Amino acid sequence: MKAELLTIGDELLIGQTTNTNAAWLGRRLSALGVRVGRTVTVSDTRAAIQQALDRAYAEARLVVCTGGLGPTHDDITREVVGAYFDAPLETNEDLLARVRRYYTRRGRDMPDTAPRLAQVPDGFEPLENPVGAAVGLWHEADDGRLIALLPGIPDEMTSIFDASVEPRLEAQPGIGEVHHRTLVTAGIAETQLQERLGDLSDALGPDVHLAYLPSTSGVRLRLSADATETDAQARLDAVEAVLRERAGRFIIGTGDVTLEDVLGDLLRAHNATLAAAESATGGLIGHRLTSVSGSSDYFLGGIVAYANAVKQDVLGVEGAALRAHGAVSEAVAKQMAAGARAVVGATHGISTTGIAGPTGGTEEKPVGTVWVGYADADGARARRFQFVEDRALNKKLFASAALEQARRSLV
Amino acid sequence: MKAELLTIGDELLIGQTTNTNAAWLGRRLSALGVRVGRTVTVSDTRAAIQQALDRAYAEARLVVCTGGLGPTHDDITREVVGAYFDAPLETNEDLLARVRRYYTRRGRDMPDTAPRLAQVPDGFEPLENPVGAAVGLWHEADDGRLIALLPGIPDEMTSIFDASVEPRLEAQPGIGEVHHRTLVTAGIAETQLQERLGDLSDALGPDVHLAYLPSTSGVRLRLSADATETDAQARLDAVEAVLRERAGRFIIGTGDVTLEDVLGDLLRAHNATLAAAESATGGLIGHRLTSVSGSSDYFLGGIVAYANAVKQDVLGVEGAALRAHGAVSEAVAKQMAAGARAVVGATHGISTTGIAGPTGGTEEKPVGTVWVGYADADGARARRFQFVEDRALNKKLFASAALEQARRSLV
Repeated sequence: MKAELLTIGDELLIGQTTNTNAAWLGRRLSALGVRVGRTVTVSDTRAAIQQALDRAYAEARLVVCTGGLGPTHDDITREVVGAYFDAPLETNEDLLARVRRYYTRRGRDMPDTAPRLAQVPDGFEPLENPVGAAVGLWHEADDGRLIALLPGIPDEMTSIFDASVEPRLEAQPGIGEVHHRTLVTAGIAETQLQERLGDLSDALGPDVHLAYLPSTSGVRLRLSADATETDAQARLDAVEAVLRERAGRFIIGTGDVTLEDVLGDLLRAHNATLAAAESATGGLIGHRLTSVSGSSDYFLGGIVAYANAVKQDVLGVEGAALRAHGAVSEAVAKQMAAGARAVVGATHGISTTGIAGPTGGTEEKPVGTVWVGYADADGARARRFQFVEDRALNKKLFASAALEQARRSLV
Repeated sequence: MKAELLTIGDELLIGQTTNTNAAWLGRRLSALGVRVGRTVTVSDTRAAIQQALDRAYAEARLVVCTGGLGPTHDDITREVVGAYFDAPLETNEDLLARVRRYYTRRGRDMPDTAPRLAQVPDGFEPLENPVGAAVGLWHEADDGRLIALLPGIPDEMTSIFDASVEPRLEAQPGIGEVHHRTLVTAGIAETQLQERLGDLSDALGPDVHLAYLPSTSGVRLRLSADATETDAQARLDAVEAVLRERAGRFIIGTGDVTLEDVLGDLLRAHNATLAAAESATGGLIGHRLTSVSGSSDYFLGGIVAYANAVKQDVLGVEGAALRAHGAVSEAVAKQMAAGARAVVGATHGISTTGIAGPTGGTEEKPVGTVWVGYADADGARARRFQFVEDRALNKKLFASAALEQARRSLV
């Protein structure tokens, strides 16, 4: 089944609100095997909604529309959709009583505009809203085309979808199925990964699609297969095997797993604990590690050693090393990682010392240079990387390089 | 000027990636007085891109298109757009040399597919990418219609927009007819702020619009006035005066300034230096402080004291305080802030100790509880806040509370 999402609201167009509704619906519909072919965001004006609805309804079997169902004067979705289907709005007395109860329970006067919430276009079915005043609306045409109207407030939208839209979709004949499988990589750039994987057309065949999804923590490889093929899972297994054969050592996990998740699991499996000594990353490594719930099992803490005095006085980096090689050097990265391990009392230590930019670069150590250190009971080592010119991006790439170095050391 | 955004990629349709590019571009274009009339997301197929481009180009003077400019086989935007404009792709030798340098500097072989990055449709201008290999592309038609093609990776997209697209838009006749002024607040939630500001309809009048832009670091108040009004700046001045009269102590700056910028300027003005002791925030405070270029002038470093042993052994928190009050307590927050100051050798110290969740909450100290500490030469103090149930959100709110406490102490 092919779907189109129509998300309505000026706040989305001017970026005051990020369109998380579209992402959430995309995930949920894909999981049901509904293929989202297009997502459109338009202003809450009659002409814009009508044109978008017309285009969506012409091309998709399912249209899911969010926004513009509230009680205020700029909530016009109900009216525009009603007019589009030649379906006059009628007040639903049960809904009106429900709207009254909604305000009474909250000890608030019912606004003059609230009775609009009880208006339903002829032929549409109201969908219960467990968390708000505005109901959803559902329409099945004789030709099998479907339309769902949902409020724009994320909690209300998701609640109505879960309770009422998903079951109605599951009951549709011929609901298509797409199986997705995602392999998560680290420590390799998109182009290097592509080169390593080489020509995959034979492996993929006509029915499996591969997408590269790069981010600052790594590239995810997403495989999609039409599940109406009886052997879709077997096909995905076969493609995954080829990917692992060619780039296995860069594949750190599957699905939504992150580098910090994988590193955490490895540390747990080794009964190991970790400390971080951060200069250029300023605390980002600790922040990422502690974004994982339960990370206190293995991450004890660290030292943000931004000033050289802190590197010396707290981490025990030798003044001679700083003078001889500079703060951004192999010797200092190693001593920082070993120092973090010793000061915090962890079995393992990692470190970063680099030049995030925009200032501080030299011919020999340009902006984007970082030394990443690693220390365990066997000693310390460090590796140099050269990244980009942007400060914010460098901090992210430095942190990923340090986490990935630790992961590889523990595999 | 009317614009349409065209964001390309299956990962957006299936919700694997949230469309933050559309929100960012919406904000930036609005700030330039460009009205985004529609945002469309389509699959990375030739037919889908072509149809969307055709519709966008027919209705908008400016089309901004993101995604599909990388070197891989599913990056087809360059080809599809070239074909749409009957503009054959030609290899730009300067760009090719740049792509080669990009890989050489990183010590990597250039992938076979990389030369595609140097292909430019005839009549298009390449736009320098400061942070990645794929350039942007720009086209101005004889009839004044504009098209910008940008990579989908957010860091690259925003860098190219800042450096090359915005200046080209500002040079267009008839642009910039809206004046915006943004007041940045901290330490107050949107609803409280709304209540404090009260009814603003008289102050705003018909021609000034106020938008509340909440984020985890504070609420920004964006005023917009139609610049064709001769007294637009005077009108904005008058509204700003009213906002400052009613909520002045929460307004920390204007424009794009951040809480960490303001705190950094205050520390500089006081000749002060700062150290952070972070438990619940795990390093996020240090990461935010060091996101400001030049922060090494005042931020010396800190201790991420995730484990209680680190709080005791490194920061000198008393075991008795931990036993009597628990790690999330006023006494521990104060000792952490004082400890950070002493260990790092800074004039000022800040700290966080809290329960980010989802586990670890109790009746007395539910998830979302945080104590934020502050220490200077006069001693230490701490304040308790109660935030939300989401771990990621709590970490951000905890960090903002600590930074804001330090700012208020220095004003």
